[in-house]
Amino acid sequence: MRVLPEPVQKLVDAFARLPGVGPKTASRLTFYLLRADEDISKSLADALIGIKQETELCEICFNITRKGDKMCEICASEARDRDILCIVEEPLDVLAIEKTGGYNGLYHVLHGVISPIEGIGPEDLKIKDLYERLKKEKINEIILATNPSMEGDATAMYLHERLSPIDVRITRLALGLPVGGDLEYADQNTLLRAFAGRRDLD
Amino acid sequence: MRVLPEPVQKLVDAFARLPGVGPKTASRLTFYLLRADEDISKSLADALIGIKQETELCEICFNITRKGDKMCEICASEARDRDILCIVEEPLDVLAIEKTGGYNGLYHVLHGVISPIEGIGPEDLKIKDLYERLKKEKINEIILATNPSMEGDATAMYLHERLSPIDVRITRLALGLPVGGDLEYADQNTLLRAFAGRRDLD
Repeated sequence: MRVLPEPVQKLVDAFARLPGVGPKTASRLTFYLLRADEDISKSLADALIGIKQETELCEICFNITRKGDKMCEICASEARDRDILCIVEEPLDVLAIEKTGGYNGLYHVLHGVISPIEGIGPEDLKIKDLYERLKKEKINEIILATNPSMEGDATAMYLHERLSPIDVRITRLALGLPVGGDLEYADQNTLLRAFAGRRDLD
Repeated sequence: MRVLPEPVQKLVDAFARLPGVGPKTASRLTFYLLRADEDISKSLADALIGIKQETELCEICFNITRKGDKMCEICASEARDRDILCIVEEPLDVLAIEKTGGYNGLYHVLHGVISPIEGIGPEDLKIKDLYERLKKEKINEIILATNPSMEGDATAMYLHERLSPIDVRITRLALGLPVGGDLEYADQNTLLRAFAGRRDLD
């Protein structure tokens, strides 16, 4: 006997394909939607269809933008500092940095990291496009904001090496204790980096 | 400046309306779908539309069933014990019990619990339909399988009171330590119930 009617099972399966959504969560979401107002599932369905049809990558920084815009709002904005470039792995990183409100420069989204294990080399990322960009734009500082992970560090090292012939300041985000964190719970590497990166108090 | 293009923000918002999905998870899912194969978002969108259009409640037990079937597979099955009835709060509870493979009777889904705080009384649940059912069907045992929560217990008590004039065995699921659980971590009430419900070893 099938435990769930087919349309219900289909939605459970579709939810379970999403990352971080296990079978229990998938069932919970499905049964919530069964009970909830039709508008909730409909707006989600519409948004899902729109996400692929109405978006594309910015021609300059490769962030996500609305289809037809060619340039994202950040690249198109007059208010941004056009001489500082922050290099990130994914569009989601742009969102995280924008939410801080503390950065006003431009971005370049690599769409991945160099990972020999997964067979991802520099040619699979938007690195060639970065070189082209640097020829055309007057950038004074490049912030390598790939993740502080093995692959992110390797990608930053690779870019540092390739970009150092250019006359540009190249920086990497600081490593150290997270704000509100607890020294006791920090891992050894983070703690070592926090010591190495200690700063004079004025 | 809008941080996200509108189609992206719409999907983030639609995900964030789901229970247990916060803004961070909503962004993560959205950016995953942006990168992933279009088929994944499309199958989810299709399933979402189907969930309301292709399902309805079983006329007998009020479990979810495929539209047009009238009766769910459990009510329609010849293989089930038709003299034992398990009363649950939600269709998801039927799924949980069916997955155990240890129950072969029928169900009755109340679609909620009595909750005076939320203004939900017996008349808002499928309780009247239960009385009608009991007039027609020959039931020997009713298992009150509402959740062991304040509202679930109150609903079970209410049903017990109303059903006791009928000549039928009325039971409630056992309370005690969860299998694989740790006595040390059990809450006091559970431990008290485990003592009260202790059983002789044969």
